[in-house]
Amino acid sequence: MSDRLRAGILGASGYGGAGLIERLLRHEAVEISAIGSRQYAGKGLADCWPHLSGALPELRFADEDAVIESCDVLFCATPHGATAPLVKRALDAGRAVIDLSADFRLDAETYRTWYGAVHPHPELISEARYGLVELHRHELPGSRLIASPGCNATAASLALAPLAAAGLLGSSAVANVLTGVSGAGRSPSTGFHFPEMTADAFAYKPSGTHRHTAEIEATLGRVKVDGKQLSSNGHFQPFTVSFTPHVVPMARGILATCSTRPRDAELTNEALLDVLRDYYLDDPLIRVQEELPHTKAVSGSDRAVLSARYDERSRHIVSFCAIDNLGKGAAGQAVQAFNVANGYPETSGLATHGFWP
Amino acid sequence: MSDRLRAGILGASGYGGAGLIERLLRHEAVEISAIGSRQYAGKGLADCWPHLSGALPELRFADEDAVIESCDVLFCATPHGATAPLVKRALDAGRAVIDLSADFRLDAETYRTWYGAVHPHPELISEARYGLVELHRHELPGSRLIASPGCNATAASLALAPLAAAGLLGSSAVANVLTGVSGAGRSPSTGFHFPEMTADAFAYKPSGTHRHTAEIEATLGRVKVDGKQLSSNGHFQPFTVSFTPHVVPMARGILATCSTRPRDAELTNEALLDVLRDYYLDDPLIRVQEELPHTKAVSGSDRAVLSARYDERSRHIVSFCAIDNLGKGAAGQAVQAFNVANGYPETSGLATHGFWP
Amino acid sequence: MSDRLRAGILGASGYGGAGLIERLLRHEAVEISAIGSRQYAGKGLADCWPHLSGALPELRFADEDAVIESCDVLFCATPHGATAPLVKRALDAGRAVIDLSADFRLDAETYRTWYGAVHPHPELISEARYGLVELHRHELPGSRLIASPGCNATAASLALAPLAAAGLLGSSAVANVLTGVSGAGRSPSTGFHFPEMTADAFAYKPSGTHRHTAEIEATLGRVKVDGKQLSSNGHFQPFTVSFTPHVVPMARGILATCSTRPRDAELTNEALLDVLRDYYLDDPLIRVQEELPHTKAVSGSDRAVLSARYDERSRHIVSFCAIDNLGKGAAGQAVQAFNVANGYPETSGLATHGFWP
Amino acid sequence: MSDRLRAGILGASGYGGAGLIERLLRHEAVEISAIGSRQYAGKGLADCWPHLSGALPELRFADEDAVIESCDVLFCATPHGATAPLVKRALDAGRAVIDLSADFRLDAETYRTWYGAVHPHPELISEARYGLVELHRHELPGSRLIASPGCNATAASLALAPLAAAGLLGSSAVANVLTGVSGAGRSPSTGFHFPEMTADAFAYKPSGTHRHTAEIEATLGRVKVDGKQLSSNGHFQPFTVSFTPHVVPMARGILATCSTRPRDAELTNEALLDVLRDYYLDDPLIRVQEELPHTKAVSGSDRAVLSARYDERSRHIVSFCAIDNLGKGAAGQAVQAFNVANGYPETSGLATHGFWP
Repeated sequence: MSDRLRAGILGASGYGGAGLIERLLRHEAVEISAIGSRQYAGKGLADCWPHLSGALPELRFADEDAVIESCDVLFCATPHGATAPLVKRALDAGRAVIDLSADFRLDAETYRTWYGAVHPHPELISEARYGLVELHRHELPGSRLIASPGCNATAASLALAPLAAAGLLGSSAVANVLTGVSGAGRSPSTGFHFPEMTADAFAYKPSGTHRHTAEIEATLGRVKVDGKQLSSNGHFQPFTVSFTPHVVPMARGILATCSTRPRDAELTNEALLDVLRDYYLDDPLIRVQEELPHTKAVSGSDRAVLSARYDERSRHIVSFCAIDNLGKGAAGQAVQAFNVANGYPETSGLATHGFWP
Repeated sequence: MSDRLRAGILGASGYGGAGLIERLLRHEAVEISAIGSRQYAGKGLADCWPHLSGALPELRFADEDAVIESCDVLFCATPHGATAPLVKRALDAGRAVIDLSADFRLDAETYRTWYGAVHPHPELISEARYGLVELHRHELPGSRLIASPGCNATAASLALAPLAAAGLLGSSAVANVLTGVSGAGRSPSTGFHFPEMTADAFAYKPSGTHRHTAEIEATLGRVKVDGKQLSSNGHFQPFTVSFTPHVVPMARGILATCSTRPRDAELTNEALLDVLRDYYLDDPLIRVQEELPHTKAVSGSDRAVLSARYDERSRHIVSFCAIDNLGKGAAGQAVQAFNVANGYPETSGLATHGFWP
Repeated sequence: MSDRLRAGILGASGYGGAGLIERLLRHEAVEISAIGSRQYAGKGLADCWPHLSGALPELRFADEDAVIESCDVLFCATPHGATAPLVKRALDAGRAVIDLSADFRLDAETYRTWYGAVHPHPELISEARYGLVELHRHELPGSRLIASPGCNATAASLALAPLAAAGLLGSSAVANVLTGVSGAGRSPSTGFHFPEMTADAFAYKPSGTHRHTAEIEATLGRVKVDGKQLSSNGHFQPFTVSFTPHVVPMARGILATCSTRPRDAELTNEALLDVLRDYYLDDPLIRVQEELPHTKAVSGSDRAVLSARYDERSRHIVSFCAIDNLGKGAAGQAVQAFNVANGYPETSGLATHGFWP
Repeated sequence: MSDRLRAGILGASGYGGAGLIERLLRHEAVEISAIGSRQYAGKGLADCWPHLSGALPELRFADEDAVIESCDVLFCATPHGATAPLVKRALDAGRAVIDLSADFRLDAETYRTWYGAVHPHPELISEARYGLVELHRHELPGSRLIASPGCNATAASLALAPLAAAGLLGSSAVANVLTGVSGAGRSPSTGFHFPEMTADAFAYKPSGTHRHTAEIEATLGRVKVDGKQLSSNGHFQPFTVSFTPHVVPMARGILATCSTRPRDAELTNEALLDVLRDYYLDDPLIRVQEELPHTKAVSGSDRAVLSARYDERSRHIVSFCAIDNLGKGAAGQAVQAFNVANGYPETSGLATHGFWP
């Protein structure tokens, strides 16, 4: 195993961490050198993840220093705010970092607006590359700090970017997202207690109050009408989205339903689907199809399935994107960006197909 | 029991029918005289509805003629298209009719556009009153034919009507609805087979293709800016809605999330909530609250819970309405309209509170 | 309302408490005088129970003293161990008590064995009557302390008692119970966090380790072969049950599957069903049927549905009982026992039918 | 790909078929040569299995002859009764066969008793090897007809076999199984329609009426007390099991809870666990652990997790086995047996770890 890149995983007792372990266990060029968790410190993998019992028998959950020390590349699946200082330490120690938290997704000013705090390490922001591979592939190779996108932002951005590139987006859109409960993390709370959450559906942090709003707006504001994507850290065109997430009673999955009403559009469903197909022509983890996507069709996988419709009568475009919030929405795309940054095949360690039923 | 009004129920082996039986069993002024079902003809109630075993022991599922013959008032929970002729027969026989199907919700021309067929009894349409009590209360007393609204249309119309009455709606809106699977009826199909449907979410019949679109547009097109509601059968203002329903893995419940972007609005969340509160001031089955509504909070009940938000940044209003699709969305409001039409207390037989968890 | 009995409810922010509120709101002879909860002290009902918003608008959650002070009869849905002192205070203050906790279900010695502590108020045990109405109806009228049975014990005892009375039980049985997650209460924990619990099934506290074992053994040990039931507090015949509960991913419902292998039995399915039918002949909340019971058929109701089979080949009797753990398994039977104790109609305030789907 | 063994799959539009496709796609020594389905004849894989869209783009569902013609080894995931003639044709054409149906699991006489029909090809039964690898590993290499076990029988047999081998089983046991709904197949029916099945649990085909009973009895009747397993087709000791399956609302997973009451046992929990550990010492897909197994911990995997307890008080042993009914219970163990029969690594193409949550 000595040729393999050593990967350390912080936040390994959360869902993002489990997804990273699953994928890196399958990755031929990587070995997992350490797993970090304060809550499970000293315990073995099976104590935290019953489905992984028997794997990595030699490892115990360790503290942050031990994980950073052990590795060549650090994956952070730790909470926002707490992650930036860890990233700083890892970079200083010469590690590459894939950060699944929100800490390096926004410029310093936007961060302060949406997170209500001064960014703890603004000097590192200019190094960060936004790890939405399909849009930012051109700037990932060689980067030492990748900010992996939020799950809701991934689905909404993938659904809307082709419209932006085709000049069909205008200055505003509505993005309603359905999300499985694992998106809220593994810490129990009354609202997500099984008897409360089963058979329930509700919206939360509606229009203009969820922080992924800023991420969607920045990402789409960087799509140029010629299809080019501006760099992660440059300026972006103003664009507003009315983003409202909804929790529905399933463990995993995100479905983004995005509506916009372009002026003077002459469209058909087929032309609209071609806009999507052309935009994602060479992307191995994107599937554009005529049928509306089901979250189940991507459960356990690392891909996104998209579709769209144009309603002549109401003159609305509606575009759809389904992902597994734990796959393409989190660990999957973190490993995908890592692969592209390091020159590995884009889907190494990933699951192109999930499970059914 | 001789003083009670005799109610016959067609389609009693479907979910709408079960809901009617449950409510009319509790209704002090009504006795159920007959229950109709072709599939269960000759069988008893418990053969079809295990939860009702022991109730109505003397009844067997009967054919349509026997049901119409038995009753003073006929509730039809039968499929659209097949219902209009039954309504005709019942009216000719002197029965009052509460029709839960779509057959008398639209004018003849709109019906043809959306249902792709000439209306079989256009001469009866002018008699029909749209049974959305909160909007059409003024024209229900004494009516002999009530067209009970569709479940999606109920939720979306309740969420948007106060905006229309306040001049905040403009000419178009986006209405995304989450619906439980019972909305698709009781007939099994692969798509709703438990292993396929659990842990899945998807949109279907998107923007401009679901027939409830026409119902929402007509209903809102009749709301005057002074708050008055035009009659069920008069002309209505043009209004378009991009309506997209989504199926989520729960048995019952509807959540409508409706977005609109009024010009030049100067709004606050509190002002917006007051618009809703004022509009539904005297309605016993409507609750307006600051917290976003959960479908579970109305499961098993016949009421609707609404809320709304204004996003200054993106200038979108988002309004929300949660109902039980089988309660306020179907049997509940059918009985509510029956009560108002006949001068009974509005909530007789209804459930103001449901169950939790 | 001055003629009504005033009921106070402790533990009103738990599932047992919600069930009591729902039933007592419907009870014509009772008014709810106070609701107790430390966690929600000072808040209103809707803050805790969204489905009950609008009910009891004048009440706020209060402390134990205020609740005891307010009422004629006290319902305790509080944790075991903590409840006995509250019962003592209420009895001293002249209140009748219906105790849903485990504190007065067992004799002092059995309590010590299974709960690992000396009973705090052994002097009160002899007053307690076990509130399984179908078996202990004869000793409930006039009692001032009723110990309402545990949910698992209710289902298993109802399934096995007719066999015991018919001499078909022998000295041991296997009782496997499936239970919905609300049986574990409303406090969140990782194991019952929605993403962990959905799509999972598991056994816990297996054979001989769950405390309801003692309750089942005592209850069945008091069934005499002539069908008579000994008093709640007398001696009982030795009987052992291998009781293993299983949690399955649903909010509510219990299904007990009980197996026993009587010596020399000459049985048929029909004869076995008659044993059950005869035993529960006059019980309004028991239904014996040939079809195996579904938990859904009793969801939201306060009744139990039973069936049984005899397998000639393996010579096992298997008997089944389905209840709603929150209905017949908790609040429902507490109110049922209260009714019988006080001379009200047995089903006052109760739901003979639940909901479907 | 020319070196690979060509595998044909009949019944490829059912859940067993999907599982086979998923595993054989990952199998380095196999290529899928054809997929059979009458219902989807002429269609592509994505029309039937959305999660596999993009895989096997060159294949169309074909008829039985084409599938048999195409392959070296035939996997049959077709209904019992209909499969035996297909097996006959495939064997005559020189194919090896892995049969997931029940057609070759029992001797001719037992088959007639439980399936109510004369076996259509009794002459082939003596060739069949029972594909429960952990018990029948010794006789699988070189076999050309493998009868892959039923899902319930797999779980119950794995839980009870170590007890039989240790002389702890006696002449009878109780086996209660919880099963996910996919065990009933993919054809829709009212009982498994999502709104009916969600939030429901029930037993079906109780003690002595489910056909897997015969399979469990035969398998355990062949376990010798020295631990050796008799051949699939020889005589077996009489043993009866009271087997009762229960359907619980989850898509996949089986949990067997098996109880027996050995005479004169002197046992401890730890000694009992050692009995299980020793029995499965070298089995890569079996995990014995102290914690009671969860079905979720094996979802998506091909392994079984076991535990057991001894209750001194009631003198019952309870042993537990969790599997994924679609993994170790069906496609997984079919491929496992195929691997052992053909000299491939036992876990080729299989998933030792599944997914969570």
